[in-house]
Amino acid sequence: MPGNSTTISFARGAPSLDIIDVEGLREAAVRAFANDPAGATAYGTSVGYVKLRAWIAERHGVEAERVLVTNGSMQADAFLFEQLLSAGDEVVVERPTYDRTLLSLRELRARVHAVELQPDGIDTDALAELLRGGGVRPRLAHIIPNFQNPAGYTLSRAKRRALLELAGEHEFVVFEDDPYVELRFGGERLETMVSMAPERVVYASSFSKTVCPGIRVCYLVGPPELIAQIARRATNTYISPNMVAQALVYEFCTSGALERSIETVKTALTKRLRTLEVALRRDLPQAQFVAPEGGYFMWVTLPQGTDVAALFGAAAERGVAFVKGTDFMLEGGENTLRLAYSGVTPEEVEEGVARLAEAYGSLAHT
Amino acid sequence: MPGNSTTISFARGAPSLDIIDVEGLREAAVRAFANDPAGATAYGTSVGYVKLRAWIAERHGVEAERVLVTNGSMQADAFLFEQLLSAGDEVVVERPTYDRTLLSLRELRARVHAVELQPDGIDTDALAELLRGGGVRPRLAHIIPNFQNPAGYTLSRAKRRALLELAGEHEFVVFEDDPYVELRFGGERLETMVSMAPERVVYASSFSKTVCPGIRVCYLVGPPELIAQIARRATNTYISPNMVAQALVYEFCTSGALERSIETVKTALTKRLRTLEVALRRDLPQAQFVAPEGGYFMWVTLPQGTDVAALFGAAAERGVAFVKGTDFMLEGGENTLRLAYSGVTPEEVEEGVARLAEAYGSLAHT
Repeated sequence: MPGNSTTISFARGAPSLDIIDVEGLREAAVRAFANDPAGATAYGTSVGYVKLRAWIAERHGVEAERVLVTNGSMQADAFLFEQLLSAGDEVVVERPTYDRTLLSLRELRARVHAVELQPDGIDTDALAELLRGGGVRPRLAHIIPNFQNPAGYTLSRAKRRALLELAGEHEFVVFEDDPYVELRFGGERLETMVSMAPERVVYASSFSKTVCPGIRVCYLVGPPELIAQIARRATNTYISPNMVAQALVYEFCTSGALERSIETVKTALTKRLRTLEVALRRDLPQAQFVAPEGGYFMWVTLPQGTDVAALFGAAAERGVAFVKGTDFMLEGGENTLRLAYSGVTPEEVEEGVARLAEAYGSLAHT
Repeated sequence: MPGNSTTISFARGAPSLDIIDVEGLREAAVRAFANDPAGATAYGTSVGYVKLRAWIAERHGVEAERVLVTNGSMQADAFLFEQLLSAGDEVVVERPTYDRTLLSLRELRARVHAVELQPDGIDTDALAELLRGGGVRPRLAHIIPNFQNPAGYTLSRAKRRALLELAGEHEFVVFEDDPYVELRFGGERLETMVSMAPERVVYASSFSKTVCPGIRVCYLVGPPELIAQIARRATNTYISPNMVAQALVYEFCTSGALERSIETVKTALTKRLRTLEVALRRDLPQAQFVAPEGGYFMWVTLPQGTDVAALFGAAAERGVAFVKGTDFMLEGGENTLRLAYSGVTPEEVEEGVARLAEAYGSLAHT
């Protein structure tokens, strides 16, 4: 069956245009050039646009010296990894985890240990065993605490404490990678690990999910000495990040547009997620999942033995896309997949799940 | 004498705010969000904002596949160097050359050969001797052809041809680093080397000098295969460059603001340069220089034996800053300095040169 209708994509972790505040962006740009033409247009420095850096620092209740604003999250990750890791260094990641993080770590020739992710976060008992019994001495643990990519799971308060205890005992850095934190649909917001152990944690977040991805503004919060080292690295890489974009984000944040945008996104994504849950339970009851409390992603486990690689092809033929679970792991996960509901309307969710169920039905089940 | 007046800086190669078209930037931002909200706000791809890429390609008369748009020049340099160079590879640079390029090459542990820069460009006879007699086998030659940083010199047509012949014969890549090309005050614009030998040259230019530095938009033009390799590297580094900034630059370029901005900058810089020439001849006749035909920089040679490091301190005490020539070389140049006239008004040029002359007079001359 050829894909004669437009493909519905559950693949990309990106928002649809209807939940971007384009009007607010335009107004923020106008204000940025009016309020601070010199700051917005000049080179600036590698720590980022000074007013935005101060705003972020205040929001986190830390000194500005702990903050560095970069061109997007991947660039921030790259700076941190290059600063802290040498070839052969051991790193702990969640299993599954963000595929680009795995790729970056492999390119740096780090020795990656994947620790199982449970619905309440990384298996800290398994991590403790790996550290104590397994002789693993990680330099860094990469953790996505809220609405994890790809699993949608959130690290519990108890496990945040357990993880920090292990980090203290075994002297590794926790990299708290937190781009989805603002997109909580319900329940209680949990304290960040960087606020619980500021000398042991480097925190990253981004405006990609709350302003827009094309603005490419992310930041790190960490110990001042490390931030200063990364600032020197950033100077040598690009002199300074984008001042026009960062001045625009600053105006967006301080005008109230940020809070409005977050509400818009949360309202829309809640509806998409609820639609997805209902559609999966109705059309594809074989799918097991834990509904996320926020963010972009739902992790789906199909019955043992399901060949998701084959499902991927059958789905593509029917005009529906997702990412295979195997992309997020070093090994295993052949019966899992990630569904991103950030870029699809509720109507598309309905139709996409129907197509997915049809693709599933077309597979030869053993 | 303490510096009780505001420092006049001939140090930074950056424009003053009065020659930035802030109004044009604001209008371009408004149009970018109105005309292409999806393209400006989404992740996009690592080759850059598609419309800007196409516009640049057309301006250079090449296919879009030869163009990649990045976050500023340094980032483009870094991608190119990382793609082409391994530790121990030989590289030719001009002497003097841009200090950040020297730093990047040294960090990559390239073996750097500096070839003397003459008022009509790199000494191609000395380069030929180095290649033929000296046994040097460079992978790359880094050349700033127009209004070179720091010397202000321009590579002649004859030497462009000679350089490309050497590159063909000895199989090295010419990196034509050309951020100042649009800022020609007079005389004839010379053909780019990339248009003369598209398979042998990688060209870089930037909107920092024609739009504003804070926008951080630069581009590479090169062989399609190399550009595709760098695009993959860019994806792994930052997913995509700043789409908001690149959409803004696209609107700035296509509205006619770019050409107006270039005229504004050239008119202002011509006046600053003429003022600098007259002031130096009057107040500091010991200074030898060749007036540049464009760009931001003038290279000054003081009498043999002058200690420019001491002059730097004496000048700072009198509230005037410049960059020592030694910063742009691996060795030598103790009696040279770079004066940037891009960020100073004619009045500041007058006052700055008076202070510099006073500082020079304060040195003990041997």
